Amino acid sequence: MREPGGTPLGEAVRELLLDSDHVDPWAEVFLFAAQRAQLVREVVAPALTRGAWVISDRTYFSSIAYQGRARGLGEHQVREINEVGLEGVVPGRVFVLEVDPGTGLGRQHRPDRIGSESVGFQEAVSDAYRDLAGADPDRVRLLDGRAPVETLVDQVMGALGR
Amino acid sequence: MREPGGTPLGEAVRELLLDSDHVDPWAEVFLFAAQRAQLVREVVAPALTRGAWVISDRTYFSSIAYQGRARGLGEHQVREINEVGLEGVVPGRVFVLEVDPGTGLGRQHRPDRIGSESVGFQEAVSDAYRDLAGADPDRVRLLDGRAPVETLVDQVMGALGR
Repeated sequence: MREPGGTPLGEAVRELLLDSDHVDPWAEVFLFAAQRAQLVREVVAPALTRGAWVISDRTYFSSIAYQGRARGLGEHQVREINEVGLEGVVPGRVFVLEVDPGTGLGRQHRPDRIGSESVGFQEAVSDAYRDLAGADPDRVRLLDGRAPVETLVDQVMGALGR
Repeated sequence: MREPGGTPLGEAVRELLLDSDHVDPWAEVFLFAAQRAQLVREVVAPALTRGAWVISDRTYFSSIAYQGRARGLGEHQVREINEVGLEGVVPGRVFVLEVDPGTGLGRQHRPDRIGSESVGFQEAVSDAYRDLAGADPDRVRLLDGRAPVETLVDQVMGALGR
């Protein structure tokens, strides 16, 4: 499951987010929050109800880091807006794969509007994730994104307790 | 200028809002807030800066009435979310044309997803607008939507002080 996206509405919003020429910063917050609310109600909550584990590429912590910190809109406000829309369906564990901004930019196959932001922007995002991990270490864990995939899988499975 | 819409991004969001098969209620709030933030920054604020008057078909009071009251998400929360995104650029005067829900439904050329909601839903919207007017009578005025256009124009111009 991916964010933004994962539902018909969400995939349409994803295109607007990544390919529009001009997106106001608050409009960006709301578009991410919209696709996320849709995803949670249409996919995540039903899966949890039937006892499944849900693994998601991104969550609202990304909005806190990207829009709240790096775009300067305020981490608290961006968190609140998203949490209202999620109605309590939030991730139990978050793993952040850290690489230096230069490496991260180099790994993109097709840089989109947000992925094309400056190294300074990506560094602010990275700082925000570190602060999120520091504030909530039981839930948010930083991993070395340069490690081999097998190592990362072992670390994640270890952290999940089996 | 119309809402939802009025900008390239906003018109794309309008289509999603009105023509999607399934839109989660909170996703609906956020999509309206997104197109509104975009409209305010791209069109409204620059117009106000150059001294123009801005007339808009709808504003965030519609979200308070439709999503906050009629969809039951909470008027206070929907107001707060929108006001955060508007950064203080809010309407000085709001005129609400009242008709009974049956007449309103009959006046639609092509009922969309929200316009097709039940009479009970439209009545809840109407009640919410009346409460908004009651709470802020200097800003929000109810007009009789069955009156001739000329009468309504006179009433609006009179209320605006000339």
